[in-house]
Amino acid sequence: MTTIGFIGLGIMGGPMAANLVRAGHTVLGYDLGQARVDQLVAAGGRAAADAADAATADVIITMLPDSPDVEAVALGEGGVLEHAKPGALYIDMSTVRPETARRLAHAAAVKGVRTLDAPVSGGEPGAIEGRLSIMVGGLEGDFEEARPLFEVLGATVVLVGPAGAGQTVKAANQLVVGGTYALVAEALVLLEASGLDGKTGLDVLAGGLAGSRILELKRESMAERRFAPGFRIDLHHKDMGIAVAAARDAEVALPMTGLVAQLVAAARSQGHGALDHSALLKVIENLSGRAPVKE
Amino acid sequence: MTTIGFIGLGIMGGPMAANLVRAGHTVLGYDLGQARVDQLVAAGGRAAADAADAATADVIITMLPDSPDVEAVALGEGGVLEHAKPGALYIDMSTVRPETARRLAHAAAVKGVRTLDAPVSGGEPGAIEGRLSIMVGGLEGDFEEARPLFEVLGATVVLVGPAGAGQTVKAANQLVVGGTYALVAEALVLLEASGLDGKTGLDVLAGGLAGSRILELKRESMAERRFAPGFRIDLHHKDMGIAVAAARDAEVALPMTGLVAQLVAAARSQGHGALDHSALLKVIENLSGRAPVKE
Amino acid sequence: MTTIGFIGLGIMGGPMAANLVRAGHTVLGYDLGQARVDQLVAAGGRAAADAADAATADVIITMLPDSPDVEAVALGEGGVLEHAKPGALYIDMSTVRPETARRLAHAAAVKGVRTLDAPVSGGEPGAIEGRLSIMVGGLEGDFEEARPLFEVLGATVVLVGPAGAGQTVKAANQLVVGGTYALVAEALVLLEASGLDGKTGLDVLAGGLAGSRILELKRESMAERRFAPGFRIDLHHKDMGIAVAAARDAEVALPMTGLVAQLVAAARSQGHGALDHSALLKVIENLSGRAPVKE
Amino acid sequence: MTTIGFIGLGIMGGPMAANLVRAGHTVLGYDLGQARVDQLVAAGGRAAADAADAATADVIITMLPDSPDVEAVALGEGGVLEHAKPGALYIDMSTVRPETARRLAHAAAVKGVRTLDAPVSGGEPGAIEGRLSIMVGGLEGDFEEARPLFEVLGATVVLVGPAGAGQTVKAANQLVVGGTYALVAEALVLLEASGLDGKTGLDVLAGGLAGSRILELKRESMAERRFAPGFRIDLHHKDMGIAVAAARDAEVALPMTGLVAQLVAAARSQGHGALDHSALLKVIENLSGRAPVKE
Repeated sequence: MTTIGFIGLGIMGGPMAANLVRAGHTVLGYDLGQARVDQLVAAGGRAAADAADAATADVIITMLPDSPDVEAVALGEGGVLEHAKPGALYIDMSTVRPETARRLAHAAAVKGVRTLDAPVSGGEPGAIEGRLSIMVGGLEGDFEEARPLFEVLGATVVLVGPAGAGQTVKAANQLVVGGTYALVAEALVLLEASGLDGKTGLDVLAGGLAGSRILELKRESMAERRFAPGFRIDLHHKDMGIAVAAARDAEVALPMTGLVAQLVAAARSQGHGALDHSALLKVIENLSGRAPVKE
Repeated sequence: MTTIGFIGLGIMGGPMAANLVRAGHTVLGYDLGQARVDQLVAAGGRAAADAADAATADVIITMLPDSPDVEAVALGEGGVLEHAKPGALYIDMSTVRPETARRLAHAAAVKGVRTLDAPVSGGEPGAIEGRLSIMVGGLEGDFEEARPLFEVLGATVVLVGPAGAGQTVKAANQLVVGGTYALVAEALVLLEASGLDGKTGLDVLAGGLAGSRILELKRESMAERRFAPGFRIDLHHKDMGIAVAAARDAEVALPMTGLVAQLVAAARSQGHGALDHSALLKVIENLSGRAPVKE
Repeated sequence: MTTIGFIGLGIMGGPMAANLVRAGHTVLGYDLGQARVDQLVAAGGRAAADAADAATADVIITMLPDSPDVEAVALGEGGVLEHAKPGALYIDMSTVRPETARRLAHAAAVKGVRTLDAPVSGGEPGAIEGRLSIMVGGLEGDFEEARPLFEVLGATVVLVGPAGAGQTVKAANQLVVGGTYALVAEALVLLEASGLDGKTGLDVLAGGLAGSRILELKRESMAERRFAPGFRIDLHHKDMGIAVAAARDAEVALPMTGLVAQLVAAARSQGHGALDHSALLKVIENLSGRAPVKE
Repeated sequence: MTTIGFIGLGIMGGPMAANLVRAGHTVLGYDLGQARVDQLVAAGGRAAADAADAATADVIITMLPDSPDVEAVALGEGGVLEHAKPGALYIDMSTVRPETARRLAHAAAVKGVRTLDAPVSGGEPGAIEGRLSIMVGGLEGDFEEARPLFEVLGATVVLVGPAGAGQTVKAANQLVVGGTYALVAEALVLLEASGLDGKTGLDVLAGGLAGSRILELKRESMAERRFAPGFRIDLHHKDMGIAVAAARDAEVALPMTGLVAQLVAAARSQGHGALDHSALLKVIENLSGRAPVKE
């Protein structure tokens, strides 16, 4: 069994680390919040003294909110690369810019540390049940070595390309998800404003070429305006920022993505940041004067 | 068995009329192209002398390219409403503006003619195999009367609301379909421009929350740039015009729909009108300088 | 002096007809509202019995709200083309689709009636003061014949091309105007949300490459949220519909125009139809949660 | 006369530093390119040994390509803040994110260094002729102290708010400029595709409410497809990135800005980065299949 340094024990990282403990691994956890560390210890993990301590493990995993956090923990003073052993495998499972993942990989290579970028989708339930989708960028050998750990955490685990590729696929995923919510919202608003029952109309769409996982899972809650998260607008806003930046770095122009990013930003500005991302519907309704901006 | 006047025996109407013949109905067919009428006769149908002749049947079905065609055939001199018997049931299965369907219903009511708007999705294969999805607007009694005919033509048949509702649901369907193609295209361009294998990346998306019927059916052909129709860009361009008009009539503002309509228009302007609607990919690629405008 | 049949004596048409009377022309006016006809008579004009009566003049001018009105009055029973004398000159000064203008010109030519399309900009004050801008489509000889009348009504009078060209230029004008309002609104919202004084920031923009007639005339009222019309959102919404349709007819894809059309539609849906078009600012503010949807 | 450390002697910084020399100031110049330093010395300036040396002056000015350059020179080892004297005035005239300007101001305050952010518009000719527009963020006292220097460099000099405000106004300016080019491009494409002479149509627009400084200066060159810079697409692409980031930092949603950013990105992706920003026209033309992607 492997010793794993796990940094970032939040909503996602907490249950992921616990699943690794449950699978028999030694998990050396670290988080700025002591309560989260205690929770891991209660689940059978061990407390790292600090990030540097966690970084001495054979495998280091980070699961942090945003690019600057990852850069600080990975590249900063007292951070992962300063303390990791040559030959260690460092897996960042946070969602960050592909460019950040590539810079990290280069910096790590200089120190003899191997890296994988391995962002996930599937949200809190996926993390708890070990049923995440994991998109991995890096070298095949490193991926194969990490695969047993990934299979503890996720149901779908795919190596999609070299360093940064995991983050690129995640960015592509999030732009399609955000855009699909916006399209379903526009369909629903058109149906209702035309005097139809929105749910009945979306039922028909769900059964044909317009069908999608989002229509399958969310059309009822959207038609009934239930927006308990799920995956929060705030996080999707962060992810759309990554998608727009990834497009810029790849030197492509993505007009739909540019618009979706602004609509998600609007959802946040209108005060819906803590709601499920399906609450993009509120922006579309509001644009047509069909709902109050703030509850 | 019912006598059905069927006007418009094209790519869609031809096989639909033939299916009705096969199910035992007397079909009195009419089309401006004599060859198409001959084909129906060869299949066991009968030739109407003109539209007026077809309009004397108990049930009249029209399957025509666009709103002006329907208005001419339904409302014009020598047209359906001039010659239909009071009490006849007139079903327009063309895709037209919801507003056109409502005007037709009113004009018919004045003459004592009952109407249903019943646009379909599923394309030529669906028409041939009798597996169309049919979205119906009108009164429940009329719908129930027509249901046996619809069940010959389609696999999914739903009454979605009053007159015009079928067209509204069709418009909503087409905006979601067009938008989903654009989103998948942007994802693919981002993946490829980032140096990844597009197909592998889309495979991952297809398995998660970004999944859709379009990703399921079309990701392989899109990644390989195969754009044989299927449903042509030209037709989707017509349908996006209807979606934008329907939004206008319903007094809603749909920013995604507005943008998708322009992207589909671009596909047509760039000369891809006869390709499958998945060729929206060519517009997104071209925007990023990744493909020639014209083959 | 010419005898002019003038159909449509509303906010624009009323003062225009009065200006023609003042310039010494015999104006035979018609409007569905008797009060408006009376007002023209009080100003020295004459009352036509109906549109057909007005259509018997040497020059016929229509100034009507929208394409269907123009089609009804020009092409309908008892309308202009039915009653105009061969050789008469029919000038439509309404803002309609270029396509409508071209169809009118063809229908008129069949009857030996000459046409010009001559939409205006400059609003009610321009109509009253005879300082409109007039964009004319048609033949040079007809334009020269009409020029003395145009010079009574407007300060800038330009022949821009053949039949329909006046309407195309008007459409181009309105998409630039609507889009500029949206851009200035976004600049203002960004400035204010960043804690700056909006007016001071716009002053700087007005003096440089970002400068425009709209910044010159409207930045103060926009910064102070004064939206008394001026040119109403409702009319600009109509005009954006024409711009989108003109793009469609010309087989071009205009993404900015498509988005502006939806933003103007939003202004109307949110209840601001009777405000000045600079009230597009309310849509942009509202999108960012910075203003209530409805007063 | 003041001693000024001037870091960054490129296309803009070179002539600006030379103008300060000409006005009688002692200018201690630094650039990574020795030839540029030599040129300043030939013009009467003095060569700084390195950035640290230049940073010991009473007033330090930086004029650098992008945010990371400014951060490195200002905050990095051997940089401005490490070597500036307490009480020195540091003016960054580069165009960077407002957020970067604010971070710089905070970091400087800790060291007792005063700052102004003072981005410019007006391009190379404005820099050479000392006719730039300068948008300044910072404290009034510091602005008044710097005013004599600004007046050597620019014709319009405005204090628009506290630290970062100059950059916010610059961002607002660039989004309006980029958007106006896109709108004029769409108008031109619509006119030409409708068979009109583009120049004639734009002349009419320039004279009315659609009028703008861009129509005034660029309509002829755009109609004739002359795109010699001027201000390059590459730089405008950088600036749209700043505008989108500024909107994000200010928590507002700007749909037009989001779309313009993608259209400018497209111009760059299509290979037009070195052309004038009016070459946005090539993207709009190309979208409608009216021009080749690459020359």
